Amino acid sequence: MPPMPHRPWTDRLPFMNWARGYNREALAGDGMAAFIVTVMLIPQSLAYTMLAGLPPEVGLYASMTPALVYALLGTSRVLAVGPVAVVSLMTAAAIGQLGAALPPAAYWQAALALALLSGLMLLAMGALRLGFLANFLSHPVISGFVSASGILITLSQLKHLLGIRSEGNTLPEMVHALWLQLPQTQPLTLALGAATTGFLFWVRKGAKPLLMRLGLTPKTADMVAKAGPVVAIAVTTVLVWRFGWHAPGNTWSGFWLSGGTMKIVGHIPQGLPPLTWPEWNLALWKSLWAPALMISVVGFVESVSVGQTLAAKRRQRITPNQELLALGASNVAAGLTGGYPVTGGFSRSVVNFDAGAQTPAAGMYTAGGLLLASLYLTPALYFLPQATLAATIIVAVISLVDLGVLKRTWVYAKADFAAVAITLAVTLLDGVEGGLVAGVSVSLLLYLWRTSRPHMAVVGRVPGTEHFRNVLRHTVECQPHVLGLRVDESLYFANARTLEDRINLEVAQRPELRHVVLLCSAINDVDASALESLEAIDHRLKEAGLRFHLSEVKGPVMDRLQRSGWLSRLSGQVFLTHHQAVQALENR
Amino acid sequence: MPPMPHRPWTDRLPFMNWARGYNREALAGDGMAAFIVTVMLIPQSLAYTMLAGLPPEVGLYASMTPALVYALLGTSRVLAVGPVAVVSLMTAAAIGQLGAALPPAAYWQAALALALLSGLMLLAMGALRLGFLANFLSHPVISGFVSASGILITLSQLKHLLGIRSEGNTLPEMVHALWLQLPQTQPLTLALGAATTGFLFWVRKGAKPLLMRLGLTPKTADMVAKAGPVVAIAVTTVLVWRFGWHAPGNTWSGFWLSGGTMKIVGHIPQGLPPLTWPEWNLALWKSLWAPALMISVVGFVESVSVGQTLAAKRRQRITPNQELLALGASNVAAGLTGGYPVTGGFSRSVVNFDAGAQTPAAGMYTAGGLLLASLYLTPALYFLPQATLAATIIVAVISLVDLGVLKRTWVYAKADFAAVAITLAVTLLDGVEGGLVAGVSVSLLLYLWRTSRPHMAVVGRVPGTEHFRNVLRHTVECQPHVLGLRVDESLYFANARTLEDRINLEVAQRPELRHVVLLCSAINDVDASALESLEAIDHRLKEAGLRFHLSEVKGPVMDRLQRSGWLSRLSGQVFLTHHQAVQALENR
Repeated sequence: MPPMPHRPWTDRLPFMNWARGYNREALAGDGMAAFIVTVMLIPQSLAYTMLAGLPPEVGLYASMTPALVYALLGTSRVLAVGPVAVVSLMTAAAIGQLGAALPPAAYWQAALALALLSGLMLLAMGALRLGFLANFLSHPVISGFVSASGILITLSQLKHLLGIRSEGNTLPEMVHALWLQLPQTQPLTLALGAATTGFLFWVRKGAKPLLMRLGLTPKTADMVAKAGPVVAIAVTTVLVWRFGWHAPGNTWSGFWLSGGTMKIVGHIPQGLPPLTWPEWNLALWKSLWAPALMISVVGFVESVSVGQTLAAKRRQRITPNQELLALGASNVAAGLTGGYPVTGGFSRSVVNFDAGAQTPAAGMYTAGGLLLASLYLTPALYFLPQATLAATIIVAVISLVDLGVLKRTWVYAKADFAAVAITLAVTLLDGVEGGLVAGVSVSLLLYLWRTSRPHMAVVGRVPGTEHFRNVLRHTVECQPHVLGLRVDESLYFANARTLEDRINLEVAQRPELRHVVLLCSAINDVDASALESLEAIDHRLKEAGLRFHLSEVKGPVMDRLQRSGWLSRLSGQVFLTHHQAVQALENR
Repeated sequence: MPPMPHRPWTDRLPFMNWARGYNREALAGDGMAAFIVTVMLIPQSLAYTMLAGLPPEVGLYASMTPALVYALLGTSRVLAVGPVAVVSLMTAAAIGQLGAALPPAAYWQAALALALLSGLMLLAMGALRLGFLANFLSHPVISGFVSASGILITLSQLKHLLGIRSEGNTLPEMVHALWLQLPQTQPLTLALGAATTGFLFWVRKGAKPLLMRLGLTPKTADMVAKAGPVVAIAVTTVLVWRFGWHAPGNTWSGFWLSGGTMKIVGHIPQGLPPLTWPEWNLALWKSLWAPALMISVVGFVESVSVGQTLAAKRRQRITPNQELLALGASNVAAGLTGGYPVTGGFSRSVVNFDAGAQTPAAGMYTAGGLLLASLYLTPALYFLPQATLAATIIVAVISLVDLGVLKRTWVYAKADFAAVAITLAVTLLDGVEGGLVAGVSVSLLLYLWRTSRPHMAVVGRVPGTEHFRNVLRHTVECQPHVLGLRVDESLYFANARTLEDRINLEVAQRPELRHVVLLCSAINDVDASALESLEAIDHRLKEAGLRFHLSEVKGPVMDRLQRSGWLSRLSGQVFLTHHQAVQALENR
């Protein structure tokens, strides 16, 4: 690796890089983006908080201070940090395991502790420069996990659309509970929820063309279409307020509401985010550390991939280890100001980017907008039906579900398919934590399994070149007394013996053999176990009157073999290229 | 891999291969070897049974039927199956965990269950052809484990040498218990034990030269020296019998025996091995499955490495999967005939080999010899002091302790050193099971860690050849507009992003660059995550006006890339050799 470039101190406080050049143009872009994102975030925050099982104001709090902190410390210029769907689901699962009937205050306490713990873990990972650990969550595992989460989230919201009560963290539990409660469905709530869902789906696809036919420019049409959820919220809120569906004993409560009332958001306290300090409860923290770790890793992976995708579009870069610090500080802020675990969200960041955000200041303005909303707008949301929020969640997460990946990985590589399928199945059947652990374990085990059975090829010379390839795939030239064998894997304890067996087999089939040349171009490491195997091979070949040579040994491997002293005992030679080996052994 | 050769049915019953050609010469060799091994095994069986904490006759039983069964099913011609030191220690630890003060009958029951379980596991592994799993126990882990076991076994025997009582499964427990009991040391027992130990060490080195000076041939001298333990047993047994040290109130019991008596082997029931059926106790079996699995794996690895070493000396081969079946059946036999877990032992197999055993019939004769001993000889062993047995164990296992491996692996590779050191330390401090689990886990994690940070090299042409090597290590020729980069690892989820970062860095440093050629000779696999990374790299290079090419892609990788359809979207080309790539791009 080349030496690390010098890191200026502004790398630790990335806002220094953009704050100095801040001008009117950036202000205009950021201001417009902040307005659009604020309008989108108000319902989204409420919806994700409902998904996490927390009071609605918590979602607003979690969208303010964490976003401010990220704006100061983050390296992405457009990432918007706050509550997201998958992390909300993981929060619900983590707190749900503590006990089915936790009082609301204790539930919130646990969410605060979860955010703080997860923030501290991210900070620690950042300080230890462990950003690379996120690489162990492979694409197939993330893909299976996100699809399964989308299905679980959709199922968890069906109860709000149906107007029933139902619990459960896994697919069988949810389906069972929904099935039992189905007779209590409120036809009116279902009608309202289904209409909202249909409208929101239409807005995604059909609103923009319609608005353009009405004379708007494509960009304006796009922005106006983003306000679709606001329309749905306004209309359904007004309906509830006008007809009093939320009030016990209203005229619709017989058949249309199955004798009950329509669930609404209700009272949201007005005011600044509170300063909170998670309870010092060792038992609580102990039972939360594992979910906090998963939330940290998943949140980090989601955030970094969104950030990288958007940065690449404008030829910018993000720094994973600094992102760990920024996300860690954001989560600590969430835990200390009444929020719950947050990360960089896909939809809000894309909207921010598309609306023209230039710098993280857009995030600060968004936080300001949400502060105004939570000070003055919350009374207007009193009559907002929960079914409308459920519809916005379902429309947002259904796009996460991508079962086509099963087919694509099946075609590409069975091991990747297995990783997707197992992550998906275990997440659905056992829950989010089990799913992640199973996915990562299966990926690693399959990788080890593959490397323990390396591909090996007998090689010959491609005519007219100095290049040697597999005799089974290419027309090549071989000499009967020289065997060239290529092993396509580093030699380590799990596969060392395989090479011994293969060489024994090849030698037994070739009575005229005098030299075995191991082509080491694909051997990137030789550990102590493999060295013993190589010694054993050399020893046996020597006893059988053959010589054992190596060719194209890489620098790092050569260094190590030389240190071991084995090369001086080797019966044959080490050649720089396989071609030189074959030439030198031609008449020996 | 070439197609599997046809397996004749005699492979399942390997004795068919040697029984038909059995002749007088083989009978002579086998008979002589059996006599010598029997003489050696009588004290060894008693000693290992004492180490396992079982009644002495169990060791004799475990040396009979298992050896017979192995003779019929095993593929090694000279392996001797029976109780061995490390497995006896593991048995003691496994049963010890069940409860400190188990009654002797329950203790034996547990040993039978352990043998049966371990046998069934080996049979299952054999049926599923899982012999390769043993490869995951790397040499450093085995080495650390065996050394630590040697230390633990030696410590566990010190109490017999000192004539005190002491318990414990780990180094700190044992040292603590020995320290507390030290004042109760019996000077006479210590003198007898120390003298026996000294004599046995001398027999190993000094007896053969002395016997040769007395006129024996080297081979005879070697064989007679093997009888050293028999001499020690005879002498110490006669001493105890003559002076009555074992009897309460004997004249030596004051100072010399610290007011007690010398521990002797005592009554060993005469007779055939009993038919036993391990109790159907679900709780017992549940708590024994994990130790049974470890015993199976360790026993298998020990047996196979002894078998391979000896087979190679006579140009024979052993078949690991058939060995699993043979060892499995042997352990089942041990569980059904009053024994405890067994495996192929190093010392007895080497003696069998050196004494001239030709076929597994030698093992059958040995079983017969032991049967005669257990029918007629056991009364003669009544006065045998336990200190003598402890001395034979210590002399046998002290050679297992090889701390030099720490230094050798430190020089060779730090990862291997870490595996040895952690296995050694955890085995000593936490016990045999924790040590094995820690060792295997650390080895696998270090392997994953290494592969997640692959070595990469910018390559140039070695002048006068078609061969490309690292620019930092070799004097090579490069073109400024073509970057050749070699990654020394398969591309998979854990390292895919590293390649993206490195290419970004290299491209940023080279303004005149027009082509990037990835030399794939060391890339043995590209999983779905890595494919996405390659697509991202190609995409970014294309946007920056560069082209991305591949060279020397291996067959299996090429098949997979073609299936994915990516190659048709690639901005550059795939070249058979890197040399062709550089020639073709010279003027582009």
